[in-house]
Amino acid sequence: MSAGAAGGSTGDPGTDAVRLLPADLRARYRELLARWVALPSVAAEGRAQQATADTVAEELRALGLDVEVHGTAGAPVVFAEKRVAGAPTVLFYNHYDVQPADPLELWTADPFVLDEREGKLFGRGATDDKGQLASRVVALEWLKRRHGGELPVGVLFVVEGEEEVGSPNMGAYVEAHRERLRADACVWEFGGVDARDRPHLISGLKGIVTVDLHVRTGAFDQHSGLGPVVPNAAWRMAAAVASLRDAEGRALVAGFYDRVRPATAAEAAYVAATPRDDDVVAEQIGVERFLGDATGAEWQRRLQLEPVINVNGIHSGYGGPGMKTVLPVEASAKLDVRLVPDQAPDEIFGLLRTHLDHHGFGDVVATLAERPEHPSRVDPTHPWVQHAAAALEEAYGTPAVVAVSSGGSGPLHPFVDVLGLPVIMIGVGYAQGRAHAPDENVRWVDVERGTYATVRTIERWAGLEAPA
Amino acid sequence: MSAGAAGGSTGDPGTDAVRLLPADLRARYRELLARWVALPSVAAEGRAQQATADTVAEELRALGLDVEVHGTAGAPVVFAEKRVAGAPTVLFYNHYDVQPADPLELWTADPFVLDEREGKLFGRGATDDKGQLASRVVALEWLKRRHGGELPVGVLFVVEGEEEVGSPNMGAYVEAHRERLRADACVWEFGGVDARDRPHLISGLKGIVTVDLHVRTGAFDQHSGLGPVVPNAAWRMAAAVASLRDAEGRALVAGFYDRVRPATAAEAAYVAATPRDDDVVAEQIGVERFLGDATGAEWQRRLQLEPVINVNGIHSGYGGPGMKTVLPVEASAKLDVRLVPDQAPDEIFGLLRTHLDHHGFGDVVATLAERPEHPSRVDPTHPWVQHAAAALEEAYGTPAVVAVSSGGSGPLHPFVDVLGLPVIMIGVGYAQGRAHAPDENVRWVDVERGTYATVRTIERWAGLEAPA
Repeated sequence: MSAGAAGGSTGDPGTDAVRLLPADLRARYRELLARWVALPSVAAEGRAQQATADTVAEELRALGLDVEVHGTAGAPVVFAEKRVAGAPTVLFYNHYDVQPADPLELWTADPFVLDEREGKLFGRGATDDKGQLASRVVALEWLKRRHGGELPVGVLFVVEGEEEVGSPNMGAYVEAHRERLRADACVWEFGGVDARDRPHLISGLKGIVTVDLHVRTGAFDQHSGLGPVVPNAAWRMAAAVASLRDAEGRALVAGFYDRVRPATAAEAAYVAATPRDDDVVAEQIGVERFLGDATGAEWQRRLQLEPVINVNGIHSGYGGPGMKTVLPVEASAKLDVRLVPDQAPDEIFGLLRTHLDHHGFGDVVATLAERPEHPSRVDPTHPWVQHAAAALEEAYGTPAVVAVSSGGSGPLHPFVDVLGLPVIMIGVGYAQGRAHAPDENVRWVDVERGTYATVRTIERWAGLEAPA
Repeated sequence: MSAGAAGGSTGDPGTDAVRLLPADLRARYRELLARWVALPSVAAEGRAQQATADTVAEELRALGLDVEVHGTAGAPVVFAEKRVAGAPTVLFYNHYDVQPADPLELWTADPFVLDEREGKLFGRGATDDKGQLASRVVALEWLKRRHGGELPVGVLFVVEGEEEVGSPNMGAYVEAHRERLRADACVWEFGGVDARDRPHLISGLKGIVTVDLHVRTGAFDQHSGLGPVVPNAAWRMAAAVASLRDAEGRALVAGFYDRVRPATAAEAAYVAATPRDDDVVAEQIGVERFLGDATGAEWQRRLQLEPVINVNGIHSGYGGPGMKTVLPVEASAKLDVRLVPDQAPDEIFGLLRTHLDHHGFGDVVATLAERPEHPSRVDPTHPWVQHAAAALEEAYGTPAVVAVSSGGSGPLHPFVDVLGLPVIMIGVGYAQGRAHAPDENVRWVDVERGTYATVRTIERWAGLEAPA
């Protein structure tokens, strides 16, 4: 089905209008999202966690699932289960927590009151991740309606409350419940269309190791007249950070690339076939030149397949107006290291420590800032990935762009490598959805197409034809 | 005269008590300093400049000098003059401005009310530089008393109001008034004893070039998932800064050392003879190891004779608690470069620019933060320096430590290299005087000894014996 072939207007200019969802399910989606957006479940602030988990549990129960709210070392996890004899089981991974809403003054309206404007629904969590979860609830109601009032597949939900703070308890949760989490496939918390409105099917996420660096060279700042003899903490941290990578972004840490798994022929082919994005991105973010002068397929290869050491910040000494002729005695920096299979977080952190020691920065203290995440990938040629790709083409009227990996990270590893599931990333997001930012939103056009794609993916997995 | 031979108590424990000043001049010193400390002449804030200049002018007139208050592009300069036929002329360079008083909460008492405690006088400007200026006024009154009621030498004063903001107008002022500033020697604005209570005679100041560095790599910060392709401003600035010097503080800028004038045999001998200081300094400032593992004479050589590129600060990206996986788009750093003869500020700034360009940092913008100062030195074997050394030994009862150069900077160049004067740095300061810091103070014991040393220096210059 071509997206342009469907009737109705979403009010979204420049996109072919679609109206796939039955009107009552569209209303249901809006109602669900309004209810959840009103709960300020900001993980970083520990707000509204139990209340939000409870409403999620209630909605999943209303779908006919058996629901339990599991305590963890952090926020509760909503677990839901309904197995169907003779049918495959689909595990939905989502999260009910959101990013902080500040800066509040940059929001057009209250971030915790759903607001509809110009074919979009605005509010904190609209796309990340409450709007995705609402789409799945609606998709399952729709599936029941299309198949005689019963779910045609088994369904599991794991809805956590700490994704926005690095999912510190998800690995242990999956390990502890691996038997109850047996399934045939996993639908990931996000998915949607890219900057050119093409459906995106991402098959992997990078791992991440976040590191705090700190150095102290004396008891207190000194007058810079002592510069020829007194160590300079600002220089030491600058030099330590500079030593980690070269001007084109390649890591200089010995052994860093040793465990990078070469791309399979299929992965390489998908990367090479990814349509060009760099020109649009360069314009959107005001960058004149990418690292390594990368464009086209090389840009995609770097983004999808290369690990990288990122500097998130460096701070030392005076930064105000004019001058202060001081030798700073303290300096700090923050790094995030994005990993690809089969790099292991612990080993990478160890290599970083060894690098600092061998390069004369034994005094630079490195500590893990947050629990690391392992990299993980799904084979993009897996038949269930291919089923999803076909469903996306049905829903969007254009072939899906299959990416081997996102540049971003998430708790994919326990689902892929512990549970052994093919994980599929489909959903209702789009490039300007402003996840984590003011005016976060989801477009009706994506709710329509994305929810339909989810329905058709599950029908294909279950070997069901779409009803006439 | 041995300092320990004089009577009276200063209340300063651990220092031999001296009482050299006549009681009424001691009272006069206290009165002058109280009056000046009460005027908050903070140059950085442009406060009380005219009022302070006017009271300085009044006191110099009371000495019998002809006084003019000269306008400049900034704060006024107090100029005073009294020539004596057949006698040499001494030019006093001082400043009436002070550093800001904050952080106010770290002061034991009001910084702008002179407070006497434990043999010390506390207040902003107590040692830098109002307490030095007051000592010179009292020294001249004393000299008149010792020599029949008349000044035995010609006297000039240049008292500026912008020393604490880099003396931006002093070079032009000296150039413009070079005829009226003809003299035989200059007494510099500061001087005193070192951390071991030995009189210090410093013969040079370093030049200084202050530089702001800035780099921008795009329109706004990016999610660090784009790290393999998007430039990282924090890394670029860290690498630019790191490239400027090595781990032991040696500059890596090509040509940086080309114009460094080798030490004369006399300079080298004085540096080698400077008593050891590094052990005391290391303990005071909590430094375990100096650059190049320097100790003793090598520590002194570096401090006095080596130019250096200092990093005063570097700032980019996130520095708060936890992590923010961001690629910063902007970064800044501040440098001060300390120069030795014959390095020229303009040339050094040019070499820095060339270095950045040749090392791939053409996008790092470098701008001069403040007006640079040239390095300058006086020949320590100059007879007038030797006269001062002899006077210091008289006043303190211990030989003066002659340093070829301070590690610090100041507007010495126009006085030495434009006016051609031997400049002598003697005064009433000490190592714990807290110049620029809370609880700035001057000790009575140093007021006594330093003022007497000034009197005896001038008598020696004029070929006069001390009165019986």
